[in-house]
Parts: sequence; structure tokens; C-alpha cells
Amino acid sequence: MKAVQVVGYGSNLELADVPAPEVTGPHDVIVKIGGAGVCRTDIHILEGQWAEKSGVTLPYTIGHENAGWVHAVGSAVTNVAEGDKVIVHPLITCGLCRACRAGDDVHCAQSAFPGIDTNGGYAEYLKTSARSVVRIDDSLEPSDVAALADAGLTAYHAAAKAARTLRPGDRCVVIGAGGLGHIGIQVLKAITAAELIVVDRNADAVKLAVSIGADHGVVADGGQVDEVLGLTGGEGAEVVLDFVGEGGATRDGVAMLRRAGDYHVVGYGENIDVPTIDIISTEINFIGNLVGSYTDLCELMVLAAQGKVRLHTSKYPLEGFQDALDDLDAGRIRGRAILTP
Amino acid sequence: MKAVQVVGYGSNLELADVPAPEVTGPHDVIVKIGGAGVCRTDIHILEGQWAEKSGVTLPYTIGHENAGWVHAVGSAVTNVAEGDKVIVHPLITCGLCRACRAGDDVHCAQSAFPGIDTNGGYAEYLKTSARSVVRIDDSLEPSDVAALADAGLTAYHAAAKAARTLRPGDRCVVIGAGGLGHIGIQVLKAITAAELIVVDRNADAVKLAVSIGADHGVVADGGQVDEVLGLTGGEGAEVVLDFVGEGGATRDGVAMLRRAGDYHVVGYGENIDVPTIDIISTEINFIGNLVGSYTDLCELMVLAAQGKVRLHTSKYPLEGFQDALDDLDAGRIRGRAILTP
Amino acid sequence: MKAVQVVGYGSNLELADVPAPEVTGPHDVIVKIGGAGVCRTDIHILEGQWAEKSGVTLPYTIGHENAGWVHAVGSAVTNVAEGDKVIVHPLITCGLCRACRAGDDVHCAQSAFPGIDTNGGYAEYLKTSARSVVRIDDSLEPSDVAALADAGLTAYHAAAKAARTLRPGDRCVVIGAGGLGHIGIQVLKAITAAELIVVDRNADAVKLAVSIGADHGVVADGGQVDEVLGLTGGEGAEVVLDFVGEGGATRDGVAMLRRAGDYHVVGYGENIDVPTIDIISTEINFIGNLVGSYTDLCELMVLAAQGKVRLHTSKYPLEGFQDALDDLDAGRIRGRAILTP
Amino acid sequence: MKAVQVVGYGSNLELADVPAPEVTGPHDVIVKIGGAGVCRTDIHILEGQWAEKSGVTLPYTIGHENAGWVHAVGSAVTNVAEGDKVIVHPLITCGLCRACRAGDDVHCAQSAFPGIDTNGGYAEYLKTSARSVVRIDDSLEPSDVAALADAGLTAYHAAAKAARTLRPGDRCVVIGAGGLGHIGIQVLKAITAAELIVVDRNADAVKLAVSIGADHGVVADGGQVDEVLGLTGGEGAEVVLDFVGEGGATRDGVAMLRRAGDYHVVGYGENIDVPTIDIISTEINFIGNLVGSYTDLCELMVLAAQGKVRLHTSKYPLEGFQDALDDLDAGRIRGRAILTP
Repeated sequence: MKAVQVVGYGSNLELADVPAPEVTGPHDVIVKIGGAGVCRTDIHILEGQWAEKSGVTLPYTIGHENAGWVHAVGSAVTNVAEGDKVIVHPLITCGLCRACRAGDDVHCAQSAFPGIDTNGGYAEYLKTSARSVVRIDDSLEPSDVAALADAGLTAYHAAAKAARTLRPGDRCVVIGAGGLGHIGIQVLKAITAAELIVVDRNADAVKLAVSIGADHGVVADGGQVDEVLGLTGGEGAEVVLDFVGEGGATRDGVAMLRRAGDYHVVGYGENIDVPTIDIISTEINFIGNLVGSYTDLCELMVLAAQGKVRLHTSKYPLEGFQDALDDLDAGRIRGRAILTP
Repeated sequence: MKAVQVVGYGSNLELADVPAPEVTGPHDVIVKIGGAGVCRTDIHILEGQWAEKSGVTLPYTIGHENAGWVHAVGSAVTNVAEGDKVIVHPLITCGLCRACRAGDDVHCAQSAFPGIDTNGGYAEYLKTSARSVVRIDDSLEPSDVAALADAGLTAYHAAAKAARTLRPGDRCVVIGAGGLGHIGIQVLKAITAAELIVVDRNADAVKLAVSIGADHGVVADGGQVDEVLGLTGGEGAEVVLDFVGEGGATRDGVAMLRRAGDYHVVGYGENIDVPTIDIISTEINFIGNLVGSYTDLCELMVLAAQGKVRLHTSKYPLEGFQDALDDLDAGRIRGRAILTP
Repeated sequence: MKAVQVVGYGSNLELADVPAPEVTGPHDVIVKIGGAGVCRTDIHILEGQWAEKSGVTLPYTIGHENAGWVHAVGSAVTNVAEGDKVIVHPLITCGLCRACRAGDDVHCAQSAFPGIDTNGGYAEYLKTSARSVVRIDDSLEPSDVAALADAGLTAYHAAAKAARTLRPGDRCVVIGAGGLGHIGIQVLKAITAAELIVVDRNADAVKLAVSIGADHGVVADGGQVDEVLGLTGGEGAEVVLDFVGEGGATRDGVAMLRRAGDYHVVGYGENIDVPTIDIISTEINFIGNLVGSYTDLCELMVLAAQGKVRLHTSKYPLEGFQDALDDLDAGRIRGRAILTP
Repeated sequence: MKAVQVVGYGSNLELADVPAPEVTGPHDVIVKIGGAGVCRTDIHILEGQWAEKSGVTLPYTIGHENAGWVHAVGSAVTNVAEGDKVIVHPLITCGLCRACRAGDDVHCAQSAFPGIDTNGGYAEYLKTSARSVVRIDDSLEPSDVAALADAGLTAYHAAAKAARTLRPGDRCVVIGAGGLGHIGIQVLKAITAAELIVVDRNADAVKLAVSIGADHGVVADGGQVDEVLGLTGGEGAEVVLDFVGEGGATRDGVAMLRRAGDYHVVGYGENIDVPTIDIISTEINFIGNLVGSYTDLCELMVLAAQGKVRLHTSKYPLEGFQDALDDLDAGRIRGRAILTP
């Protein structure tokens, strides 16, 4: 089959002809790819930033945001059948460790991550596991939802966790109205009545955020902390969801947080660097957020089927992978680029 | 009445004769002091560290850990009567703001803090509010429990919050086996079956911790992180309760924390300074902890009455305040110093 | 002032001229009534059903769903001022008992209930407490929201409690699309993405429910259990919110509940009568729901101000009280009848 | 191998020689039985009470409380290895359905129940699954803990769920100090500081309950409701854990429950039959409790290893099965009877 592979760090990806994956274990599921999201992480992989962490052997096929149709299943697979339309959770988890047994599968003690540390979905077929495939509604197309498998799932996870404490009248600041923030805003609108204040450096992104439901948009041009304090009666917001995590976002974000508030860390880059005296005297919390669980992905697919979460996509044939990466790198993509083998 | 007052920053406290407080408002409660805890914060106040923050006008009476007997009550007080034996919650709260109405009174929008920003309990009588007095069991003496009013209450609050997620088999690291840690350990033993690992620089404190129920004691002499990892199968603990918060404790503590674990910040001094990438990739949380609520204090007094939380005290007459402070400063106090007017 | 009073059980209400209430205690608040809801409970009171339970002395003024403007306040009132537009929580609570301190004020150990056991709001002025008044948004009128003070608050409380466990993809059956159900549906739409299945005997009520956001409407004409099972893949719903509680509703409702589901009891009349073997083998829960807390009322007023919860009202002058009761009794009211003194 | 089988309802069990189970699926685990608990359910099975519900084909091997050593494992088993000492969760679950993915495996959509609907553990070997075996501490013996696999696990599950809301000062009534109650009391002592009030008809059982940690023992001889109300200041207990569920226990239990309290249903026999008006006016809850999850069993084994949960056992060789059943039926067993093949 055709697959797009990393052949060397610092080199371009290459289209190769490789053997299609086959069922070898009882829980294996082979998915015919309908859409594979092109993510900034893919660029970082090519630059070698993940080389040591993943320990993957080159060449290998990248692509960690995948959806498609079930092509073949192992002997013990009971939850999907050939032909089912599915989205693929990014992790392959063991199902037996303590975390898996508690439903907290992203902390699986022995997970694999196709596209990062084993072959991924820039290809005609992908090998994953019964524990990683979620059937999607007839009304959804794999190429439309593929990018929800990782970026969207992370945003859903954080927004849903935050929503558990948000009551009507509470304010939630969303820092960053890009790919993740865009999903986070739609999720929060669907499951809370909290007032949403969206902060971004890009005025267009702020405008878009307001158009999809944000109650207030704030352009981060220097006065953003004061503006948010003004919108929250001088007290700050009960929750800050930080999808940026760099360039001073965390310093600003903490200043926007109300006493006893929760600061959700999602984006990354800089350090959380806050005096312990401030943490205790205001009794604030910093909440880490990784990608969502399998159950989170099921829930996100419900919101997608209900039309409550939508994602703009630009589609490319598999062979157009270089165009997709170039467009992403140049900031020419609105929403997400998707390869459709 | 006799009262010990701050007359100037950088000066010694002075014993003065001042008018006894009287009931003026409907919720006022006058407490005849049975015991007033001598706290390191009192030394900091004298040094002027709180001058700006509290904005208090000198001279004033210090002492924020108080217990005694109800001496007089305002017209609207229904929860205590003259003669009742009580411990005094450190804050006077309004009862009407959003935080108070939610039971989260330590975040009251307009609280007062006797001993810090108004007259406290190094005196024969203290003026507080109906919302601040908790009746204590007949078996308890005010001078024995006074120090639980603030230091103990903070430890209870953090330990009880941590306990909500601790299940049998989980490990909880307690950093610091001093005044607060000592209470925290007893609380955790009373309300969880978690395995307690206590870390302190002082070998005697570690020994004491083990004698009151810690499952493992670790002397922090450089190898503490490895030792804790060894005790937790290399994975770290589900919860770290940090009663120190300075001198490198937070760096160590984060290294002792398991994936998806909670780091409870109680002690303070240095910064929490952690890369956001580490926070999200392990999905850890930092939980701030202020002093406990009125309800927390009621619960702590139950544990004290049940004999599950005990505190060693050294008692001094009110006039011996300078000895008490000197002994505290010189590290000659085991447990807590208490003034007994 | 003018007031409508119960002068005897089995007799009609009478308009009387009585002294206006005055501030006597520090927390008293006198509200000039802008709207007083006419509730079926008022008819029950007249029939004598509450005589023994309330122990009230006749004559007295009824009316327990009130809103208006602050007319006068006691010396210790800090949360409202003369002229403020407010809705009145139905209970006057003490603020000092265990329940009040935990924010669970509806379980106050010594509450009063104006309109039931003391003078209520079918009058020009009402005496209540600082702990019972919630300021409302400028955009809201007292006569429009008065009926949210009790019926609406009960529906909010139950719906908000249910929402805490409802995730996207979950189903929630609402039994009864009358006054409470109507509010419950709007609340659930505002704060969850659960699929709402509304069941009522009245086809018009079902139609109305669908028009305000229910995903499915089921007319209870005998086949309602099968119909709900059909809508839930044969498994039943994660949550049933029963606003009826009589006429066989509970038997039906339990049959519509999924394994591990929550059955929220709100309406009343018949018994919950279920074999313990069925409760344990399916591990279902029955959750009682009383009127909401002060905090719940604050949250409901936010939803009202956001336009997410609306109530149809028919207004009558205070002197038209008999017409209002007659219309209510005869089923001629759509939404709620409101007296506007 | 030797196995004790049901050969007909109304007939005695018979010892048979049957083929030992073998690994056929990837997740199969064969356990060499070290202890099999003899449970009252086994008597009910013989009486035919479960015939229709289980649909099992006779003859088959009974025994659903099992522990032993891993004898053989399937190709996909990674959590245990040959020779490991294990206790066996009573259910074999699929790991792929919604409930399993959420960690709530007892609600698995396609579980099997060895000893009830397929061959169980009154035998030399038992076939179960990787998802059902929990490694136990070196200090524990299979024959000592076997009875914790079902009866003990149910008690743990209910007690642990109840403990989540119990704070110091709260009261918990335990109805029934027999097999399950005995475990429940030990669990509650280990993980809460709540005051335990144990109610049983049998004075010896009450005495035993007090000896293992109950704070108050109440003999149910007619005055039990008043006695419990007396012990709770007339208000009732925050939690009632009912391990009986028949003979009037539920009527008594509800009368012992405080406003806003939780009634945990564990034992069964009669109906919960309570007016909805009482449920809403006191806002009480009825909480169903099935057997515990895999994670619950892991936690219970920690308490057993810590010596916090102990069970008295009477051991019989496998061939002595009839003696064990006769002794159980005649009330001659203290604690639990265990077959040790």
C-alpha cells in the first residue's frame, strides 16, 4: 500500500510502497483510512524533536489523527465489524493495568502511539486495536472528523473537566482561539451555561470565537488582563482554560483567575512559575490536561453528530502531503488539513 | 483587661491594660480566652512582614489561635450561650456573600482576621462572631486545642481534601513533619487507608511521624526522591502534601508524584516552577490550600474529641509571652507554645 | 396595607387591610411585592391540607413565590439596599446551623416559610431576611420571575443535580411537561448535551416540550415505557426526572431507567415501591429533591437573565386573587398566574 | 479433575470427575483453587431459585468465591503469570463495552458468572479471565481470602461508596452484623472517622461488631429506631447501610435516616416502599449496591494485606462439601465455610 514515511530527521517525508498491515493479534483492528489529520506535531517529528522521546526506528509512517472504515478484525474483537465507520483513539492501550481498569486509559502503563512510536495513518491502512476504535454516526464522514481524534479530543477533555465545576454565572476564560480553543469553545457552549471570555492575539480568531458562541472576545494587545478583570467585576474568572501555555500566557492567565479558581493547563511551552504564597493565599489550582480517554472520544463524537462541534477542514489527496505540510507551516490552513488516501 | 500588643515593628510586644471588648453588634461573641497559640506568624508580624498586607493600626493585640469560654453574646446569636467551651475560627466572615453562602467561608468577600488585622487573643477576652465559634467536647480543654484553630485547621483542610481521592493502596507523601505535618499525618490516618510516606530533614521528626502512624519515614538528606520512588514501585505517589514549600521541597515533591497525581501546596516560600509540558504529559495537578472552613473546624474538633488528633503543648501564663516567643524562636518548643491568661 | 388572607379552612380567601411589616431585627428585609405566584399549594392550604403541618394561626397572608423591590433593611444587611430589584427565596434560614454553614440551607434546623407558616406575599409588602433575597438583572421584571421562586427553583435544583452526571450521549427522561417540567427542560438544555425524552399524558404539553428543546416527545397513552425503551436502544435512560410522582408515573419511570441509573423524585403523591432485589441487581438510585438552595436561586436567575429559562404568565391585580385561583382550579391558566399588587 | 456439581434442582450436589479446564482464548486464565467460599446463594441455587435467571445447563460446577494460584494463561495475558497467588473477581467481563471502558465493569453488557451460569470453583481448577484475577500479597492465603471475592466485595463496594460522603462527626448505621456487615464495619473503620452504630437482632453479633470497632451496638428487639434516634440527637444518621433488606429492616432503616441522608440498599428481600412526599420533603436518597468492581477488589485486598479486614473461616476438604453446606444451613458456621481442594 501507499504510505508517507519519515526517512530521516531534517529530511522531507517520502511516499513509499509498503506492505499493508495485517491482523496478527486477537484484538487487532485494521482501519482503511478515510482521513488523516496533519498536525503541527508532524512538523516537530520531522525536525527531530520527538526522536529521543519516541525511540521510533526509521523509516516509519506518521499520522496520529485518523478515521476511516474497519477493514479487518482479530478473533477477540466484538465491538466493531468490517465496514463500520470509525474514528481512531490515538493510543493503543493494554486494558489490564490499573489506569485502564479505572477508565483512565490515557495513563495506561504500556501504551503505543501510532504515528509517533509506531506506524500511523498517512497511509491506506492503519493497524490499531479494538480498544481504540469508536463507531461514528452515519451522518459523519471520516475525513471531516479525523482531526478530532487528537487535537479535538484534548480540547474536549479539558473543557469537559472544567465544565464539571462551572455553574450558571461563572466565567470561563479561554486563552487561545486556534485549533484547540475553537473546539473547546464549542464544547463549553454545549455543556455549560458559563459566560465565555475568549482571549487571543489574533483579532480574526477572536471574531471567529464570538461567532461560534463566545460571550466576550478580548484581543491580547497588552490590556487583556485588565479587560478580563473588567468583565469579571474585578474578581477574575472561576476557570481559565489555557490552550496556549507560552509567550507569557500563563502569567496573564493567573492574573485573570478568581480566588479558589481552576487554571487548566493544556497548551505548553513555558513554565508555570508562581509563588507558593500566591497559590495558597488565593487557594487556586493548576490542573494538567492530557489527551482525552476513549470515553471522552465517544462523547465528543456525540457532540459532532449533534452538530454542536464542527471543524473546518482543507482536504488533500495522500500524495499531496507536502502541500499540506507546506500550507500548514506557512499559516495558509483555516481549520485543519486532512489527507484523504 | 490585660492584653499583649504590638506597639511597633521591630520592637518587642508589650503587656498593656486595655478596655475589655464588649458586645456591640447582634452577632458579636465575647470569648474569655483559655488558650492562645503562639505561632511563627506572630514573629513575622513583629518583624513587620504583615504591616502592609494587614494595614492594621498600632498598637493592637495579636494572637490568632484562640479557644476559651463564651462570656457574652449579641442579640442574634443562637448557636452558643454564655459559658460554652469554644474554639475560635480565625476569620470573622459575613455570611452573605457568594462564598459564605456556598459554605466556602474562607473566601468571604469581607472577612476580618483577629490577631492580624484587628485585636486578637493574647488577652483576657476576645471579640469574635457567632459565625466563628465552635463548641468543643466536654473532654477537651481550650488550652489544649487552641493551636488547632489555625495551624491545625490548615493541616486538616489539606489532608481532608487530599483524602477525598485516596483509596486503599494509594500512597501519600507528606513533606514536613513539623507542626502542620504532625496534624496532617494524624488526620490522614483517621480518614484514609492510604500508605503514608513522611519526608523531613530532621531525623527526630521522622521518628516521631512514624510513632504516630506514618508507614514509612524518609530523612531528606539528599536521597529522598530516590527513596520515595523506591517505596512506590518507581511510579511516585498519588498525592504529595507539601507542608514545607521552600528550600527545594517543591522540586523534590514534584519528582515524587505519580502520573495523574495531586500536589497539595500548603507550606510556602519558594515558587512552583514546572514546565507546562511536564504538567500536561503527566497530567498532574497543583492544589492550593488555605486555612479550613468553619465546617472543617467542626470536623477537626470531632477528631480531637475522639482522641485521633493530639497536639503536644507547652503552656505559659499570659505575662510569659516573651519567654514563649523566645523559646519558639530558639527552637526550644516541642509541639506548640500556648499562652493561658 | 392590603393583604389577601386565609381566614378559615374551607372558606374563601379575603382581602384585608393589615399593618405593613416593619424592620425589627438586624437581618430583616421588607420587600415591596412586584409579583406573587399563585400556586396549587395555595389551594391545598385553603382546603386545610397544610393546617396541621404548618401550625399557622389564622388569619394570615398566603403567597410563597415572591419578587419585588427592597423597601427597607435591618442594620446588619449588607447584600441589598433600598430600591434593589429582588426575587425572594421561599425560606428564611438561620445561617448558623450545620446545614446553613455547609451551603445546604434548605435543610436549615430552624427555618420559617412565609406564605405557609407565617405571612406571605399576597400583599403589598413582605417581611423576609437578608439571607433570602437575590438581586435580579435589570432586564428582568419581578412579576415575570416571581413564579421561579419556588416551582421554578425546585425544577432547577433537580435538573442541575441530575446534570452533574449527564454526559453527551446520555439520555434523560423527563416525566411531566407541566409547570416544573417546563422549567426543567429549559435548564437541562442550557447546561447539558444529554438527549431529552419528555413524557406527558397531554399531547399539547408534549408538543410544547419539543418546541422548547426536548429531543423526543412521548405521549403517555399506555405504550410510553416501550416507546422510551425503543428510543434508548432497549436499555433505558441514564436519568429519569419525575415531576409527576403519582398515577403510576413511578412504576413507568423505573421501567424506563437504565442499569446504574438515577431516578430523581420531584413530584409526589404515590409511593416508590420497588423490590430491593431489583434495586441492587440493576444498582439504581432514587434521589430525593426538595426546593433549591439560595445558591441555586442565584444560578436560576442567571439563566433567566440570559433568556435561557422563560415562563409564560397571566397577570392579575391583587384584588383579582379569586379570579386567579378560579382560573387555576379550572385549568384555564397557561404557565403561571401572578398577582401584581 | 474433581469437581462438585449441581446435577438436579432439589437434589444434593455430587462429586464428579470432569476434564480440567484448558486455555482456549487469548485472555483465559486457569486458576488452581486454594479456597472456594460456601455461600447461602449456593443453597438457593440447589433449591432452583436461580434456574431460570441463570439459564445454566446441568450438570455444572458451582462456587463463585474463589482464590488460588495461576496455573496457565492465554497468549494475551500480561497481568499475571503462572504461580501467582490470586483472588478471582466473580465476573468475567468483556472489557470493550461502555461500562467496562468507564471502569464500571460490573455493568458489563456481556459478562459471565462462573459458579452461577458457567462452571465455578468447587473444583481443583477454574477457568476465568485476565480481567478477573487480582494478585494478592504474599502474606495472604487463598483459603483465607476466598470469601472476600463476592460477599466481602459487595460489602466493600457499599461501604466505600458510603464513605465518600462521611465526614468526622457523621453517623453511619449498619443494619446487619452478619457476613457482609462484619466486613462493612471493618472497611468503614479503616477509611472513615464516622461514628458507627450497628443494629442486629442477634445480641452476639452486636457484641462482635463492637469488638471489631463499632462505636455503638443496638440489639433490634423492638426499640431499635428510638435507640438510634437517641444516639443521633433525634436527627437520625447521615448514612444507613442496610445489609439485611428484609423482615422490616427497610422501614426501620428509613426511620433512622437524617434529612438529606443516604440509604444504601445491599441486602434484599422486601420492597423499598416509601411515600414520595417523604422522599422529597426530607430529600433522602436510596442508593443501590451490587458487587464491587475489579478496582474495588484490588482495594479490598490492600485492606486485607494491611490486616484491616479479617474474616473468620472454617475449612473443609473439597470432598467435605456436604458437611459445609449442612453446617451453613444449620447455622453452625462462624464466619465463612471454605472448601480447600
